[in-house]
Amino acid sequence: MSDLRIAVIGAGMMGADHVVRIQNRIIGATVSAVVEPDEARAKAALENAPGASWYPNIEAAIAADAMDAVLIATPGQFHEPVLLPALAAGLPILCEKPLTPDAASSLRMVEAEIATGKQLIQVGFMRRFDAQYMELRELIANRDQGELLGLHCAHRNPAVPDTYHNDMLIFDSVVHEIDVVRYLANSPIKSIQVRHMKRNTLNPEGLNDPILALLETESGVLATVEMNVSVQFGYQVKTEAVFEKGIAEIGRTAGMTRFFDSKISTAEHVSFKTRFAAAYDAQIQRWVNAVKKGTIDGPSAWDGYLAAAAVEAGLEALHSGKVAEVSYSPRPAFYN
Amino acid sequence: MSDLRIAVIGAGMMGADHVVRIQNRIIGATVSAVVEPDEARAKAALENAPGASWYPNIEAAIAADAMDAVLIATPGQFHEPVLLPALAAGLPILCEKPLTPDAASSLRMVEAEIATGKQLIQVGFMRRFDAQYMELRELIANRDQGELLGLHCAHRNPAVPDTYHNDMLIFDSVVHEIDVVRYLANSPIKSIQVRHMKRNTLNPEGLNDPILALLETESGVLATVEMNVSVQFGYQVKTEAVFEKGIAEIGRTAGMTRFFDSKISTAEHVSFKTRFAAAYDAQIQRWVNAVKKGTIDGPSAWDGYLAAAAVEAGLEALHSGKVAEVSYSPRPAFYN
Amino acid sequence: MSDLRIAVIGAGMMGADHVVRIQNRIIGATVSAVVEPDEARAKAALENAPGASWYPNIEAAIAADAMDAVLIATPGQFHEPVLLPALAAGLPILCEKPLTPDAASSLRMVEAEIATGKQLIQVGFMRRFDAQYMELRELIANRDQGELLGLHCAHRNPAVPDTYHNDMLIFDSVVHEIDVVRYLANSPIKSIQVRHMKRNTLNPEGLNDPILALLETESGVLATVEMNVSVQFGYQVKTEAVFEKGIAEIGRTAGMTRFFDSKISTAEHVSFKTRFAAAYDAQIQRWVNAVKKGTIDGPSAWDGYLAAAAVEAGLEALHSGKVAEVSYSPRPAFYN
Amino acid sequence: MSDLRIAVIGAGMMGADHVVRIQNRIIGATVSAVVEPDEARAKAALENAPGASWYPNIEAAIAADAMDAVLIATPGQFHEPVLLPALAAGLPILCEKPLTPDAASSLRMVEAEIATGKQLIQVGFMRRFDAQYMELRELIANRDQGELLGLHCAHRNPAVPDTYHNDMLIFDSVVHEIDVVRYLANSPIKSIQVRHMKRNTLNPEGLNDPILALLETESGVLATVEMNVSVQFGYQVKTEAVFEKGIAEIGRTAGMTRFFDSKISTAEHVSFKTRFAAAYDAQIQRWVNAVKKGTIDGPSAWDGYLAAAAVEAGLEALHSGKVAEVSYSPRPAFYN
Repeated sequence: MSDLRIAVIGAGMMGADHVVRIQNRIIGATVSAVVEPDEARAKAALENAPGASWYPNIEAAIAADAMDAVLIATPGQFHEPVLLPALAAGLPILCEKPLTPDAASSLRMVEAEIATGKQLIQVGFMRRFDAQYMELRELIANRDQGELLGLHCAHRNPAVPDTYHNDMLIFDSVVHEIDVVRYLANSPIKSIQVRHMKRNTLNPEGLNDPILALLETESGVLATVEMNVSVQFGYQVKTEAVFEKGIAEIGRTAGMTRFFDSKISTAEHVSFKTRFAAAYDAQIQRWVNAVKKGTIDGPSAWDGYLAAAAVEAGLEALHSGKVAEVSYSPRPAFYN
Repeated sequence: MSDLRIAVIGAGMMGADHVVRIQNRIIGATVSAVVEPDEARAKAALENAPGASWYPNIEAAIAADAMDAVLIATPGQFHEPVLLPALAAGLPILCEKPLTPDAASSLRMVEAEIATGKQLIQVGFMRRFDAQYMELRELIANRDQGELLGLHCAHRNPAVPDTYHNDMLIFDSVVHEIDVVRYLANSPIKSIQVRHMKRNTLNPEGLNDPILALLETESGVLATVEMNVSVQFGYQVKTEAVFEKGIAEIGRTAGMTRFFDSKISTAEHVSFKTRFAAAYDAQIQRWVNAVKKGTIDGPSAWDGYLAAAAVEAGLEALHSGKVAEVSYSPRPAFYN
Repeated sequence: MSDLRIAVIGAGMMGADHVVRIQNRIIGATVSAVVEPDEARAKAALENAPGASWYPNIEAAIAADAMDAVLIATPGQFHEPVLLPALAAGLPILCEKPLTPDAASSLRMVEAEIATGKQLIQVGFMRRFDAQYMELRELIANRDQGELLGLHCAHRNPAVPDTYHNDMLIFDSVVHEIDVVRYLANSPIKSIQVRHMKRNTLNPEGLNDPILALLETESGVLATVEMNVSVQFGYQVKTEAVFEKGIAEIGRTAGMTRFFDSKISTAEHVSFKTRFAAAYDAQIQRWVNAVKKGTIDGPSAWDGYLAAAAVEAGLEALHSGKVAEVSYSPRPAFYN
Repeated sequence: MSDLRIAVIGAGMMGADHVVRIQNRIIGATVSAVVEPDEARAKAALENAPGASWYPNIEAAIAADAMDAVLIATPGQFHEPVLLPALAAGLPILCEKPLTPDAASSLRMVEAEIATGKQLIQVGFMRRFDAQYMELRELIANRDQGELLGLHCAHRNPAVPDTYHNDMLIFDSVVHEIDVVRYLANSPIKSIQVRHMKRNTLNPEGLNDPILALLETESGVLATVEMNVSVQFGYQVKTEAVFEKGIAEIGRTAGMTRFFDSKISTAEHVSFKTRFAAAYDAQIQRWVNAVKKGTIDGPSAWDGYLAAAAVEAGLEALHSGKVAEVSYSPRPAFYN
């Protein structure tokens, strides 16, 4: 099947990042168009997608039949004017979160989509694709540790630009937890309360952060959300789930930590297939890329020979019980 | 540029795995041929590569001009009869480790490659592509903690098949450490000694495992290698590097652990770009796959609306300091 | 100086535990009296304090001049009738928390103490003596990571007896956090709010647990307290401190974890004096105890000889570079 | 029973440390004598043991009937001339490791002890009293993970004095592992081999460190010992035990780590009695010490009142569901 032609709408930080991703890491898709009013920005993004065309607006791209699908990467307040023509053209859409900044406009999008008779919009709550979130959701659903009672979420950012303001704490940042608490607890958010922690003086002027949001679901799960956007030390998104019988935490580099049955545990691999999956992929991708340029990009036949010579000494050592010296042929200049 | 056409040689466990990888995770390449004498096995592998053809031997595939490059995934003792015709045809080759089982045959391959005038062979020591090994090699090379003095390696496998025998401990398993110790220490292996640990009674009959191999490099670095293939609990490959000033360990799920300056530390992310890189990729890959089937595979517009409604309550709570109830429109049947 | 004679008031679980502690682990003190109306319970406790006497009430113990100091280990509602006569007698008092169950009675104790002209009462908020709490308080005070902004506390208990009821969540359990939040933040508690998490069905009938208490200090620090008394998996008391520049967590078995400067770290020892402090103490205490019974309780001279013989082989191996066999004299029957 | 009177032999670093330990942390014992030829050194140690006397040699102390037991803390080469008169006097002895520096002299001590007809000597292999070593020995003995097959030990010291020389790597440092490998594996050391890692240039002149010692027990367990005395970053003594079914590691700050059944786990507490044992002890010891000086050393009655006032607000918040403000009486000057 031929590649899916995608138009990326918006060539800012997120849009440019998606162009690189689609071209270099996604199978079966290609960037066919960049829709962006700023020509310089569009041209910069197009350098990573040589076959794509530039359009100043989505109407022009649709008129030119430039794409099979649309990825919207502009800020939330600009989503509606792109969504409507894309829906009208019957194009599948991946729309960065939020769908739109408020409920009334979001409902208009829902109605416009229903009018097309087909689900065309997917919203970019990408945490649902994170392996640890998926693992936690499964643990909640299977009730292995009893019912879920509460969640403690923390979203910690090193710093934010000066343009970041108080309301963005909710609609730009807490919105992730709003989706994910519902996703994990499998119950709608019933109420929200916000408390302030002591203000971080390293914040931009006027920003009253960190805050503590309390989300309660209709099923009675209470979630605390520490939204903390200027905490300097690093980027950390973690969730601690409180069950009837134990605790599980995700978001640490070691993967999910379980506090069950008087033990604190993390999982260990059971096969090289998971342990080295990324290494196998990287090896072959880099080899393919190198071969297309007429070279190799990894261990050579000479490396293979060196290992074989040492293996021989290893076998000798295994059989003799003594230290075995390795002997090598001289290195051919060919491999310098 | 058109896709690189790859012939996978051998359709056993590793070969079949590579077919799936190339078809589903590698950009710019496609499996064009499966070379495998066993027809049933070849047909099973071809189900994951619908456009590819089956050839019983490499000569037939070369005669049919079936590929631009060759990936050899047969056992090591069968590599030479595939490598020679592939080299003669001037084809780029990715050859699973070992290159060949002994030094003399490896040297023949080196000579055959030199005769072609071009480096065509890459050997599949895929640990060199593992992020933690790369990070450790960099730490050794930059001498941040002084010179590397020693390495403690452990390779732990849950179990092995009954066909696994003593010499395979060296040529099939220690061979990875043989390559990687040289790669990390950047110095050839000078000598090898083997000691036996107490025999694990859970081993297959006749297998005398675990063993302790001692590899010394020409630069004086001593590496202990625990090769332990029946240890039941999981699959674990780890390396502890001993420097003049500190210790670093790789292979744990949390990534590299550093023992420097009276602290034990692991790295934290500094950006969502690394923390959620895999989630972003997965989101878009799954969306592309779904769009090609006319569906979506992730949060819908209705999910977007639900989040927008809760965000509104969140902003109200932020401004009022009180608990704000969320109100929702009824869910359209369209989204059921 | 002669030992401090302590009367332990109450011989329930906590009181009996304190008797053992004073007799076996505290230098310079001895239990001289157990004050307990229940004779059987008193007698059981006295078995661990052979030289001590039993008194049914504190007045009798005071009349007999039975102690230099008083340790009160009865439930909180029984503290006042013991505190008043002890204060009147001018005795130093260690009083288990809470001082008394309500503010008015506590204030009466304060006034009674002031009337004696001397600070005689110490309250048993023993977390202030925990090494990790002390380390965290120091980190907050020295502002190494900027101002303290918030705290996330969790108090998790495997289970509670059926007599445990809702108000005890506050006066018996949250009271620890009430003291420690003030101690850590060095600012009085200004307000408290309580939210409910989903109820754990494993709770005793009528107990609505876990709860989330929000404590705000006068300095603006907001503390979340998860009070969770039936969580089955284990006993865990942890506190995560949110600073302007980083995060620190105490209460995990590895000691304080620091999230500073893109690293997650725990401390490593720098001397055997800390690493093996407890082992040295245990060794000598057990030796002293054994010597008093005319025996030893640890490695013997024969163990010392066996090590010396192996050391000789070790030196031979160091000098020869070869495997050195150890030879031993036959074991004398004396050491069987 | 009256205190055991101990003579500490040698007032160097270890001896002075033991004087402080016995006086301040050991129940039922007191330092009655310091035996040390260097008067200044002896006087310094005696400052921490006011009631003890100074003797220039052990014969003088024995003649004066100055002790019930002897703790020998001089270097190993000086043990024999102290052990012999102490044995002759029938005194119980705790002798710092090594018993003596070589096998012949150790055997003489064994014979001298047998001649007394009673086991009087205990040797200071204090690792046997470390909680983690005891836990590991138990795990080995109970065969929960099958037979013990091997051990990987590392002994890492930040630095050593210039007087430290090569042979001390064995008789002063590896000697600990020599005892503990036998203790853990419950089998005598059968052979020892020594290999060199690359030399650490931060070592004192002439010191060829780190080394790798291989200890094999008669039962077939192979132990690797990395002896590494100049590794700068910290003090770390760890042991990884390789079983038939899993791995266990001790010596990390988090306690024993288990690699069993596809999980990596550490233990969690199940009771406040273990979690806060040290805090309870510290609280009461410091209170006893303070009471003897007429003060308190911890939370005051005023602290108790403040907590009671906040508890009242907490109960109000629990019952009302609202934020409850705490009100306090003014702080009496008495508590300033």
